[in-house]
Amino acid sequence: MKAVGICGSDVHFLKTLRLADFVVKEPMVIGHECAGIIEEIGSEVKNLVPGDRVALEPGIGCWRCDRCKEGRYNICPDMKFFATPPVHGSLARQVVHPADLCFKLPDNISLEEGAMCEPLSVAVHACRRANIGPETNVLVMGAGPIGLVTLLAARAFGAPRIVIVDVDDYRLSVANNLGADGVVKVSTNMQDIPEEVERICEVMGAVGVHVTFDCAGFNKTMSTALSATRAGGKVCLVGLGHNEMTVPLTPAAAREVDIIGIFRYKNTWPLCIELLRSGKIDVKPLITHRFGFSQEEVEEAFETSARGGDAIKVMFNL
Amino acid sequence: MKAVGICGSDVHFLKTLRLADFVVKEPMVIGHECAGIIEEIGSEVKNLVPGDRVALEPGIGCWRCDRCKEGRYNICPDMKFFATPPVHGSLARQVVHPADLCFKLPDNISLEEGAMCEPLSVAVHACRRANIGPETNVLVMGAGPIGLVTLLAARAFGAPRIVIVDVDDYRLSVANNLGADGVVKVSTNMQDIPEEVERICEVMGAVGVHVTFDCAGFNKTMSTALSATRAGGKVCLVGLGHNEMTVPLTPAAAREVDIIGIFRYKNTWPLCIELLRSGKIDVKPLITHRFGFSQEEVEEAFETSARGGDAIKVMFNL
Amino acid sequence: MKAVGICGSDVHFLKTLRLADFVVKEPMVIGHECAGIIEEIGSEVKNLVPGDRVALEPGIGCWRCDRCKEGRYNICPDMKFFATPPVHGSLARQVVHPADLCFKLPDNISLEEGAMCEPLSVAVHACRRANIGPETNVLVMGAGPIGLVTLLAARAFGAPRIVIVDVDDYRLSVANNLGADGVVKVSTNMQDIPEEVERICEVMGAVGVHVTFDCAGFNKTMSTALSATRAGGKVCLVGLGHNEMTVPLTPAAAREVDIIGIFRYKNTWPLCIELLRSGKIDVKPLITHRFGFSQEEVEEAFETSARGGDAIKVMFNL
Amino acid sequence: MKAVGICGSDVHFLKTLRLADFVVKEPMVIGHECAGIIEEIGSEVKNLVPGDRVALEPGIGCWRCDRCKEGRYNICPDMKFFATPPVHGSLARQVVHPADLCFKLPDNISLEEGAMCEPLSVAVHACRRANIGPETNVLVMGAGPIGLVTLLAARAFGAPRIVIVDVDDYRLSVANNLGADGVVKVSTNMQDIPEEVERICEVMGAVGVHVTFDCAGFNKTMSTALSATRAGGKVCLVGLGHNEMTVPLTPAAAREVDIIGIFRYKNTWPLCIELLRSGKIDVKPLITHRFGFSQEEVEEAFETSARGGDAIKVMFNL
Repeated sequence: MKAVGICGSDVHFLKTLRLADFVVKEPMVIGHECAGIIEEIGSEVKNLVPGDRVALEPGIGCWRCDRCKEGRYNICPDMKFFATPPVHGSLARQVVHPADLCFKLPDNISLEEGAMCEPLSVAVHACRRANIGPETNVLVMGAGPIGLVTLLAARAFGAPRIVIVDVDDYRLSVANNLGADGVVKVSTNMQDIPEEVERICEVMGAVGVHVTFDCAGFNKTMSTALSATRAGGKVCLVGLGHNEMTVPLTPAAAREVDIIGIFRYKNTWPLCIELLRSGKIDVKPLITHRFGFSQEEVEEAFETSARGGDAIKVMFNL
Repeated sequence: MKAVGICGSDVHFLKTLRLADFVVKEPMVIGHECAGIIEEIGSEVKNLVPGDRVALEPGIGCWRCDRCKEGRYNICPDMKFFATPPVHGSLARQVVHPADLCFKLPDNISLEEGAMCEPLSVAVHACRRANIGPETNVLVMGAGPIGLVTLLAARAFGAPRIVIVDVDDYRLSVANNLGADGVVKVSTNMQDIPEEVERICEVMGAVGVHVTFDCAGFNKTMSTALSATRAGGKVCLVGLGHNEMTVPLTPAAAREVDIIGIFRYKNTWPLCIELLRSGKIDVKPLITHRFGFSQEEVEEAFETSARGGDAIKVMFNL
Repeated sequence: MKAVGICGSDVHFLKTLRLADFVVKEPMVIGHECAGIIEEIGSEVKNLVPGDRVALEPGIGCWRCDRCKEGRYNICPDMKFFATPPVHGSLARQVVHPADLCFKLPDNISLEEGAMCEPLSVAVHACRRANIGPETNVLVMGAGPIGLVTLLAARAFGAPRIVIVDVDDYRLSVANNLGADGVVKVSTNMQDIPEEVERICEVMGAVGVHVTFDCAGFNKTMSTALSATRAGGKVCLVGLGHNEMTVPLTPAAAREVDIIGIFRYKNTWPLCIELLRSGKIDVKPLITHRFGFSQEEVEEAFETSARGGDAIKVMFNL
Repeated sequence: MKAVGICGSDVHFLKTLRLADFVVKEPMVIGHECAGIIEEIGSEVKNLVPGDRVALEPGIGCWRCDRCKEGRYNICPDMKFFATPPVHGSLARQVVHPADLCFKLPDNISLEEGAMCEPLSVAVHACRRANIGPETNVLVMGAGPIGLVTLLAARAFGAPRIVIVDVDDYRLSVANNLGADGVVKVSTNMQDIPEEVERICEVMGAVGVHVTFDCAGFNKTMSTALSATRAGGKVCLVGLGHNEMTVPLTPAAAREVDIIGIFRYKNTWPLCIELLRSGKIDVKPLITHRFGFSQEEVEEAFETSARGGDAIKVMFNL
């Protein structure tokens, strides 16, 4: 399978693995966001033929445990997942993968867009768990890559009003271009929360925030999320900034603001592909940099991604 | 309406109101857990007659706002609720109350038990929000009055296995007598969490904890709850110990352990009365002390309740 | 309140009431689809002022029964509803109505469009009960007024693929213009069902029909619906053609195809207004005829509506 | 694997296969309700050892299709199921079966009771789909084997009041002994429906029927079910009497009485075993006849089961 991969969410993991060693003597292949072209199929595979362009769902459930059987295979304790030891990742020229986790791409979706099904799946899974629809006003904390795909997914799920928050003007301008109904620039200072919550609610309008996606995951973003969400609403924690958090949990609980977690995704590829095919979501503006797969280019790619700046998603073409 | 009231959850509120002044020149009548006998009915009331023994649901929704109309009147921003300024409470010899919030008691339920519908309603609302049923293993943090009614309610909702945790041997022995499947004594020391989680999981058994009710609401109980609950489970925050909490939120969210808040209750009285009538729940063991309604008795009652010890629920007979 | 009313669904009711007598000595005023301008408000009304343009939700719940309190006020046994004896309808120059059931129209929504919130509410309630979203392929049986608003609502809820079925070419061409992804012309002959189901499934595509709305409600449409819907899907019965039906209920049940009923709507006006305001739904093409409110015009309007043909919704301007 | 099997629901199927030929030259082995003792395990099986007593879940999902992956493997189009061609059934001295579908029986559950997990699973799946809990008044149409296990399951799910209906006095007396709160004897005459609905509602009490399980599946039982269930309730069609049905579908839909179908079960064995282990359900009274596995005994068993009378479940001990 020829492949297209994305870097981004793997950067920190990569650093632990010592960047310089990556291609030559890597302890492990990383990468879990990819698409490619089928080179060979098993004898019982019926849904694919060589030459098919496919996007890959990276995790393989055990289909024996009760989580798998009740349809929550994403939290299967025995899942085998790209780039999660001992399973190698997908930043390689060839991978072997179950046919039912290879999803054929329509002609109007490029391999690059196909690889974007992975980050988009995180957003789709979050929108499903938070039950986003045409009556859900959405607040997104953080306009990084995951915040931006969450914005796009929430829109595709019908959210009538989406406000997005960040500390960075450039990111907010990208969010604006991608169709946010309102943006709010915030600080990193905890003392500013009350005033910022007020501004967020003003920008959102009288009905208020039904669901907040915290795509950063810091004390401040989560505290803001819990305060800005209206009684009976939900906060979905997507970002993984802080591990332990200090947040006003009790006042939120006493307004029946529930906190929903997500882990990866399940059954999202068909929907992502449909959203891309129909044009309801356009991920092309999120692909800001492209690299080849030589040692230098790989290093440069990860450095570009880690540097941030105008880099949203950095793509390898293998 | 002659009435029976309970003290307990109001104690801290009362203190603010200066205990000594309570009956004589109270700035406000407290109390919201009560039952009584109908003395008089309005001209359009059809479901009740004078002499009927009833339990009172204390909150009156506005029935104009979207929360009321969608069936979540408990979070109505305009609710009028006993003992919540400017509305007086029910610790009085007579109260005037809407007929649709007065629920007739069957002959086999005493007024004292009827008054217990209020704390029981908190537990019932929590069990409903957490979707307790015959497949839900339940952990209860805290064996105080609310922890104990939660134990009883979870049992009535069919929970097959209920483990309860507390720092106090006496409370745990009460929980044992009320039918807990297992009890775990814990410390107030944060360092003990890992070891205590291990013990809790051992007592619960291989399937694990599906839902935890934190009926204390402290950093330690909530941290324990988040760690002890299995992936895909829920933690329902019932107790209101700490306001701001420092807890391992992110690892819990990444296992899709959701946090559910509750505020009071809605539509719970008919179920509570049915559970008492059928004997599925017996609240009599929770009524440990009884007082009359003179100034001295009232003061002694509140002191008894505040002192804790063997006092679970302290009842006034007016 | 000056008003705009719609006729259509009331036609058959009207006939019973003898059309000629309608305005002069009507036994009852009909009509429940209307919008108008506030002339006067009660002393406690805060959300409206005279001159406000509003759409009216016609039914008033009792807010005392368990259905109202659990958020299903549409099935309140004591509801007072326009044009349902003994309550007069809204085809009048003035109506008195509770302020919380009068929803202010934004500037870009006409009174005519505001009156369309009523039929649109039926569709919105159906889409909510059937849980339509971006993963729900929808089949609509019947391209009459309710079929067409259901098409529009399902699209606004995110349905990726909507196929609509009718016996009439003109209606199907309207559906096509309103954005149906596919149309299937059918007969009224029961024998044709298997072949028609096959054609429907072909037009829908490999994934199949997740939800069917039967907006006709005849033996044939319901039988087709039950057969065409994929295992695990839902059929929502919206139309009221036949009372008793002869349908293949058991084979459908054995594929876990559930049948969902709807009665009117609840909490739909804010969403309908938002969908009209944002342009996600445009109901203007459904308003095909307009009449004044003289005796002759009223008679002509009802005759036009009853005649069908190119009449979808017939509007009175009072 | 030594096995215990049940006959009953297979009887009609068997007849098609010509009873006399059954053991000698059967075209197919029937049976799907069984338990047995493990004789041998595969090299990767970790949850079982030879000698373990297990109950068998008969269906094997493909774990590739979207139904399996979303947790509805019971409607997997590629399921392999005991006694469903081309898969042989379990009425045999040895069967080979996946370890994750063999559920270990606690010491206090006999093999006979273990085999009863299959019919009990139908009832459990129905109770889950109908969302039975401590607030659900239940009506059961039909006091045959499936009606009786549904009665037991609904009780275990917390149903406060269960009324059961049949044409047969003996069956009703069994239902009474198993704990029905009320029984109603009915005719097979369609004209009696209104009067019988009235009697059912009277026996149920003022709150009415929230959920009806039609465990017969005839025009009359389903018509009665649709009329007897209160607005907003559910009718779950379990029995498979008639294929095509003539029923008052529209009036039921217009009261938002939903019709829910079931197909087999999913993830039910652990719950069934827990309900048997804890004593919340006792299936022993349902096992009325026992046979060995010789040709004569098999024939006699099936004749006993087909004859009805006092036979509820007929058990083979192999």
